[in-house]
Amino acid sequence: MNRNVVFTFFLFCFVTICRGSGTDIALDAKATLLHRIDSLNLLIYTCLLTLTVLTIWVFKHRRVSWLHETGLAVIYGLIVGAIIRYAGSTNHITHINVNPEPGTTYNLSVPPDMLRFHFPASLPITPGDSPIANKTYAYSFRGEIVNVEQNEIDLKATFDPEIFFNIILPPIIFHAGYCLKRKYFFRNLGAILTFAMVGTALSALVIGALMYGCVQLMPASLASSFTFLDTLYFGALISPTDPLTVLAIFSQLKVDVNLYAMIFGESVLNDAVALVLSGAIQNYETRYSHDGGFEISGFLGAIGDFIGIFSLSLLVGALMGCLTALMTKFTHVRDWPLLESALFVLMSYAAFLIAEVCELTGVVAVLFCGICQAHYTYNNLSSDSRNRTKQLFELLNFLAENFIFTYIGVSMFTFPKHHFDPWFIIAGFITSMLGRAVNIYPLSFLLNLGRKPPIPVNFQHMLFFSGLRGAMSFALAIRNTVSEARQAMLTTTSMIVIATVVLQGGAATHALDYLRIPTGQGSNEESEALPYRDPPDIGLGLRNLHAQGAFYQIHS
Amino acid sequence: MNRNVVFTFFLFCFVTICRGSGTDIALDAKATLLHRIDSLNLLIYTCLLTLTVLTIWVFKHRRVSWLHETGLAVIYGLIVGAIIRYAGSTNHITHINVNPEPGTTYNLSVPPDMLRFHFPASLPITPGDSPIANKTYAYSFRGEIVNVEQNEIDLKATFDPEIFFNIILPPIIFHAGYCLKRKYFFRNLGAILTFAMVGTALSALVIGALMYGCVQLMPASLASSFTFLDTLYFGALISPTDPLTVLAIFSQLKVDVNLYAMIFGESVLNDAVALVLSGAIQNYETRYSHDGGFEISGFLGAIGDFIGIFSLSLLVGALMGCLTALMTKFTHVRDWPLLESALFVLMSYAAFLIAEVCELTGVVAVLFCGICQAHYTYNNLSSDSRNRTKQLFELLNFLAENFIFTYIGVSMFTFPKHHFDPWFIIAGFITSMLGRAVNIYPLSFLLNLGRKPPIPVNFQHMLFFSGLRGAMSFALAIRNTVSEARQAMLTTTSMIVIATVVLQGGAATHALDYLRIPTGQGSNEESEALPYRDPPDIGLGLRNLHAQGAFYQIHS
Repeated sequence: MNRNVVFTFFLFCFVTICRGSGTDIALDAKATLLHRIDSLNLLIYTCLLTLTVLTIWVFKHRRVSWLHETGLAVIYGLIVGAIIRYAGSTNHITHINVNPEPGTTYNLSVPPDMLRFHFPASLPITPGDSPIANKTYAYSFRGEIVNVEQNEIDLKATFDPEIFFNIILPPIIFHAGYCLKRKYFFRNLGAILTFAMVGTALSALVIGALMYGCVQLMPASLASSFTFLDTLYFGALISPTDPLTVLAIFSQLKVDVNLYAMIFGESVLNDAVALVLSGAIQNYETRYSHDGGFEISGFLGAIGDFIGIFSLSLLVGALMGCLTALMTKFTHVRDWPLLESALFVLMSYAAFLIAEVCELTGVVAVLFCGICQAHYTYNNLSSDSRNRTKQLFELLNFLAENFIFTYIGVSMFTFPKHHFDPWFIIAGFITSMLGRAVNIYPLSFLLNLGRKPPIPVNFQHMLFFSGLRGAMSFALAIRNTVSEARQAMLTTTSMIVIATVVLQGGAATHALDYLRIPTGQGSNEESEALPYRDPPDIGLGLRNLHAQGAFYQIHS
Repeated sequence: MNRNVVFTFFLFCFVTICRGSGTDIALDAKATLLHRIDSLNLLIYTCLLTLTVLTIWVFKHRRVSWLHETGLAVIYGLIVGAIIRYAGSTNHITHINVNPEPGTTYNLSVPPDMLRFHFPASLPITPGDSPIANKTYAYSFRGEIVNVEQNEIDLKATFDPEIFFNIILPPIIFHAGYCLKRKYFFRNLGAILTFAMVGTALSALVIGALMYGCVQLMPASLASSFTFLDTLYFGALISPTDPLTVLAIFSQLKVDVNLYAMIFGESVLNDAVALVLSGAIQNYETRYSHDGGFEISGFLGAIGDFIGIFSLSLLVGALMGCLTALMTKFTHVRDWPLLESALFVLMSYAAFLIAEVCELTGVVAVLFCGICQAHYTYNNLSSDSRNRTKQLFELLNFLAENFIFTYIGVSMFTFPKHHFDPWFIIAGFITSMLGRAVNIYPLSFLLNLGRKPPIPVNFQHMLFFSGLRGAMSFALAIRNTVSEARQAMLTTTSMIVIATVVLQGGAATHALDYLRIPTGQGSNEESEALPYRDPPDIGLGLRNLHAQGAFYQIHS
């Protein structure tokens, strides 16, 4: 976790005045200070989430429908991010420019992981009696400094992107798999797979190609920093859609179950597809292309990568799910529900980690692990564990999602590696819309040729309209910001996510009205095939509202 | 989170062979590699926890009583730690020695937060056409290198100690407060407060003084590196006891409720006392003492610190608890149980963070917040939220505790800042036992002068025997390892924790037998005053076994 520097300077002065002269004591004080800054960071997000929760409650209470909870989280994040950025802009962390020691040899083509900095005793840099003179300190690699003139290395209220992938994303994706409404999912499997697999790849390709064209028309400095692979990578990361906001409204208004299943199924799977796709592009970049160009053997290799990684990840997830099912079936661990729940959580998380360690895609693994856990393990669990695991993942999912959207807002102002490029941003908005259109309309046409109840035109419009971008796009974009091109992508992605979540999310209810999509259908028939029973309907209760809803009290 | 270096070298070679020539691509590959190493780290711990869970189940199933789950976690951790250490000892991370750029000025007495390392193009250090030549990289501060000859900076399977304090410890302490059996706690409040407050301070002082004496008798090099404040700090961190193992056995065997309440209450509070105490000693060190000596004004200041910080932290926690109670009482947020549970979790965590940010003690805040939440908020919650929060914290507590004990085992071998000093370790073992004796016997004698049912001698022996050291001692020791003295303390603390948990924890059942302490008392009467009802007794079910037990199904 990085350091918040807003208060560093003042605290630092305070500590500097108060402390004694020994370095150990100074280092003690510094460690304490850093701990407090970490805590402050976490406190900011905790307060933001609390505020979001309270506002959601007020909105639900007053039946406000023009702004959804995720939009709210983003807006609060933006406000606080702006405050953090402009309240403390004169402070900075201390730094020194260093050169390698004479006579050092180093011949790798990546920078070293660690610097060992010996503070000299005799140089004019520091008085000879300074407590830090003649000591050696370790410094670890953080990243490249692109703009050396930029004196300030801002690291305000930002988290290590690793935290997104290892901690925040898995519960969200697992929850999606664990509460998938299987009956309607499998009934619409053809459409879902077409949209998710073919559609996402198509959308990534179209966006990539269009963006490459746009970039070529732009000023030369910009054009040269983007290769075709870069724009294709952008296409892959901006293609997955986020179901959260729209589905929450669908659930609330009891929209047609087939439409619901299609949007949910597609968005669950296209997250996985986009992740594997972007990984394949990166691999292609690493292995085959030295100048970002295009080679046919590499292209086929990338397709092979994609298929191999996707199916192996699926296998890892499914195996771990089935293993848990066997463990819970053939042992009596269910007599100790706490152990059973712990086992369930640990095995599911292990599926994610095993896939990541094997250079597969953990998100795909954890998704299919979730589906298997719901399908097989769930029936073996004690009722206590069923309840506990569902409630646990529901809560984790809620907190993690709101955290991501808050963070997207905050990081818009505080993440140090943003690169605002108006042309790229405008092009990104237009092409991401076109990419969604290319995904939905032609594929719906093709599907309708063979599909028994065809997808009506207003459903197609709604599918197009539900193309909000969310957590996965952001996580992919922030994962890697080493080059200027990647930084411009992060900025554009953040803005697209914010705009679609706030505007499209807010307008979803009206879009349903406008497109005359039937609402108010019974949602109970939907749950019959599920292990979960829908909760009693309490007013506009979040029980139904929150995404896939049926994640409550069963067999009580 | 730090990096696991076991597989770094091989992976690195692989990546180096496969990748293209651009630095961006090399940095991409490096980021991917680091992500995989992070995942591997997490996977190791996940597998260890899974293994622990399964073994606990087998032990419970076969009614093995000579080894408790925490002992098990420690032993598994030790084994895996040894494997990690000795399997990959030839690998190391790349580093370079650097000097400040000529003409740099720097006049603070702490090392800079960040180094900016410019890779020169023309020096013999690297070929002129290297992709990293002429680029600038940022490096952040990690710590002091004490032994410059030690070429290898090991950072295997270790976590940032911040993670303990900000993520792992709060749920454990909150859970302790949230499920405190209030009736017997308040009935024995006098004894509990005496043991926790006076006893812990006395124990810290005795251990500190004895250790200082021991250190003076040792070789001169050792004696000079420890000041009296250092040994006093050691006294404070080794004084708190960990209830987990003993109480689990008590709960299982239905030991006398007063004894249970005393041990549980004491160990909950003495964690808080020790934390505040060690903070006061550190403050004293920082503010008043330049040579680790003793000044009377500083001593009084430290006592003032202690009282002030303890009561303010208590206040913060109690206020946040009451605020949550008011929010849940006077709003209708209970109509949306998910929002309510989220609010509950966020407010409780905010109590911890607010205290930490204000330089108070978050653990004390979150403990009293937990007590207030149980006392006031709990009754306002919807039954869904009651269930959910209890089950959530029970599971978090279980995972966090087992993680800590696993980590204690692993870090014994992998944490780079251990300093094995046999004299200090032996002295630590003896004095920590004496400190416990000084805590229990004289204070029991004093308490028995005024206490209505006096504390029998066998209870006193059992109180002495329950002085296992655990998570809090370890967390305090690993928090700060900047000097050699602190590193010796960490090593000694780890060994005391491991020995007491494995040996004393394993022998607790026999000690109960030997001391003829009545067991098999009805535990139901105990829960009458609680908001929680004890679960139905399923065999040796973990429901009763796990620590404070009564944390289940209510009002279903």
